[in-house]
Amino acid sequence: MKRILILLSAILLGITASAQQALYSAQGVESPVINPDGTVTFRYQAPKAVKVTLSGDFLPVQHLEFEMNGQKMTYDAPGVAELREGPGGVWEYTTPFAVAPEMYTYTFSVDGNPVIDPNNVFVNRDIASLTSVLLVPQAGERSDLYAIHRVPHGTVSKVWYPSATAGFDRRLTVYTPAGYENSKTRYPVLYVLHGIGGDEDAWVTQGRATQILDNLIARGEAKPMIVVFTNGNISQEAAPLENSTGYTRPTMALPQTMEGTFETSFPEVVKFIDSHYRTIARKQSRAICGLSMGGFHTLYITLNNPDLFNYSGMFSAAIGTGSEETAAHKEIYENVDGKLATYFSKKPAMLWIGIGRTDFLIESNNEFRAKLDAAGYPYTYMETDGGHIWRNWRIYLSEFVPLLFK
Amino acid sequence: MKRILILLSAILLGITASAQQALYSAQGVESPVINPDGTVTFRYQAPKAVKVTLSGDFLPVQHLEFEMNGQKMTYDAPGVAELREGPGGVWEYTTPFAVAPEMYTYTFSVDGNPVIDPNNVFVNRDIASLTSVLLVPQAGERSDLYAIHRVPHGTVSKVWYPSATAGFDRRLTVYTPAGYENSKTRYPVLYVLHGIGGDEDAWVTQGRATQILDNLIARGEAKPMIVVFTNGNISQEAAPLENSTGYTRPTMALPQTMEGTFETSFPEVVKFIDSHYRTIARKQSRAICGLSMGGFHTLYITLNNPDLFNYSGMFSAAIGTGSEETAAHKEIYENVDGKLATYFSKKPAMLWIGIGRTDFLIESNNEFRAKLDAAGYPYTYMETDGGHIWRNWRIYLSEFVPLLFK
Repeated sequence: MKRILILLSAILLGITASAQQALYSAQGVESPVINPDGTVTFRYQAPKAVKVTLSGDFLPVQHLEFEMNGQKMTYDAPGVAELREGPGGVWEYTTPFAVAPEMYTYTFSVDGNPVIDPNNVFVNRDIASLTSVLLVPQAGERSDLYAIHRVPHGTVSKVWYPSATAGFDRRLTVYTPAGYENSKTRYPVLYVLHGIGGDEDAWVTQGRATQILDNLIARGEAKPMIVVFTNGNISQEAAPLENSTGYTRPTMALPQTMEGTFETSFPEVVKFIDSHYRTIARKQSRAICGLSMGGFHTLYITLNNPDLFNYSGMFSAAIGTGSEETAAHKEIYENVDGKLATYFSKKPAMLWIGIGRTDFLIESNNEFRAKLDAAGYPYTYMETDGGHIWRNWRIYLSEFVPLLFK
Repeated sequence: MKRILILLSAILLGITASAQQALYSAQGVESPVINPDGTVTFRYQAPKAVKVTLSGDFLPVQHLEFEMNGQKMTYDAPGVAELREGPGGVWEYTTPFAVAPEMYTYTFSVDGNPVIDPNNVFVNRDIASLTSVLLVPQAGERSDLYAIHRVPHGTVSKVWYPSATAGFDRRLTVYTPAGYENSKTRYPVLYVLHGIGGDEDAWVTQGRATQILDNLIARGEAKPMIVVFTNGNISQEAAPLENSTGYTRPTMALPQTMEGTFETSFPEVVKFIDSHYRTIARKQSRAICGLSMGGFHTLYITLNNPDLFNYSGMFSAAIGTGSEETAAHKEIYENVDGKLATYFSKKPAMLWIGIGRTDFLIESNNEFRAKLDAAGYPYTYMETDGGHIWRNWRIYLSEFVPLLFK
């Protein structure tokens, strides 16, 4: 029995030893904790620290003003709170308010050095940044869509397709709805595009898209569908560190992002999906949407392929930025009025536009809507609080998906 | 044009703003950097810090001795190095030696607080620990198998199967080889099991299993095969934060890990895979292997189902720990001699055993091999340097896979 105990301990120790290679590990304190009254407690163990603060988008926003090119602009920075040191060098902060159900990100600052929460393994990567994640789901609230429930789950796959445009294989994330693998049913397809800093992972991690799909389908509020998350940086094989370039630092200054190459190449993605999945390969059963740069891509892919998509969703679309004028594939962005006329003459089921009231792109989106209004073209519009943030994009996806393929 | 510039800047800023919610972001310094002479430079920007150190398993190991239950044991801790502060508060350390090609983990300690490298988005989760990852691939060396190359890539899917044993759906990771989706070919299947602290993600992240498979298959050194990574903690739906329990802290003290329930349930996984994938559903085309607890599972799943697997691989198997004696499903662990006799009478293609010379489990593995030797049962054996670590498990998988289905 003694030998058994030693060996059992040794196994645990052995694994812990492996974890200790990590060091960045379990401090033995719980953080974050959602308390019964809805407040949230954060803890960080640092006996030698002088000051520990917390920065998170659930705290009251700081409105920062700055000038750029002689023009005054504002930027809403996440709020900051101070933790207080308690017994054992455990620093603690409890929000003085119940945190509204939503998905948030936060980081600690320990004596000026940014640190993610070592007691929370729920981490998001956004471009080259890591943050800790706080998810406050609540039944009946929208954020409940972002949580994982015991409902039938779709399959989430990382799939590579040969891109003739790029000249190499590129990675897609593909969601097939629960039941797909074991049936002969054909499904409609939604293509979902990310912003300029994202990749084929962004909508699944920060966007909670597969949870939203699982939950909406399980509730009967959305049709079962295949969802394809592309990588809109056509010069990239795949997300950082998932491609053959190794440690090349992720950057937003990627070539070939908003100059027409990706838009031109898009039919090859549709062709790959239609030939590798049981899709309903026709316009009526095809939708596309995207956020920021992906909204810009969505508009031009739609207009240049008026027979491809019956539903198009522009989420905080990065239109009117002028990048069209310096594009390698200018033809993609030319004759917008004529392309709009052709597109609407074919009576698409829906053009959907969503944007935040304080989004820096609202002016260019208003101009675009004015153009549609002037021509009498129909579209669906949603305006929400806040700016150019993931909270809004999760909301837009949750609103857009139930309207599809009805 | 001015407006264009403003808006373009604003887009970049907008995205950066979103990244700044993160804060834990790009410090603008490069780390890690693999230098042309093979040394590696690490950097961390912390102008206010007093001391910054680095702990990593590429540094000379520290041999620590300790007593447990009156018995002296040793533990090999990763080495530690000090960074020096340079201009701009950028701390730096360059290894005084070329770092051997391999995959490593490391963390910084900033004034005593553990921090992962904010300039390296390559992060691994091990149970509840996060570490930064350093991959030094080199053509002709084994670590080249762990890198992503421009070769045909298999698809990696997160798939849920209904577990009658558990009473809920559980998640698997499934690798289908390049070409699977677009053919009618049937493939052999390898089942790969993790250790006590892992889950269905462990072999793909820390084990680099899908890179190993892609590369071995592309070189013609392994047969194309389907590979299934199970979650061996039968009380869990899925990896931490991928299941419906939300923030429940990952722990190694999970119930139902080494007491027979998972082993008993295994045929339901095989049945699911055979009914949802184009497998060659027979013993000759089925293999299983696992590390630590997964090696223990592998042994007993194999012995209790002597007609299921033609190839079995025990990597640093956690056998002889005594957990068999307190098991809920004692029958799984009883009559080992009789089960071995039956198993070997059916002439399996291969029983493969691998372990590190300083693994704390080498004694119990030696005892098991002595039993096989005494009975004249054939097996393949590999002994490597080092202990109970991922480096060895990547090596064992790379050695085991080319031997299968020949």
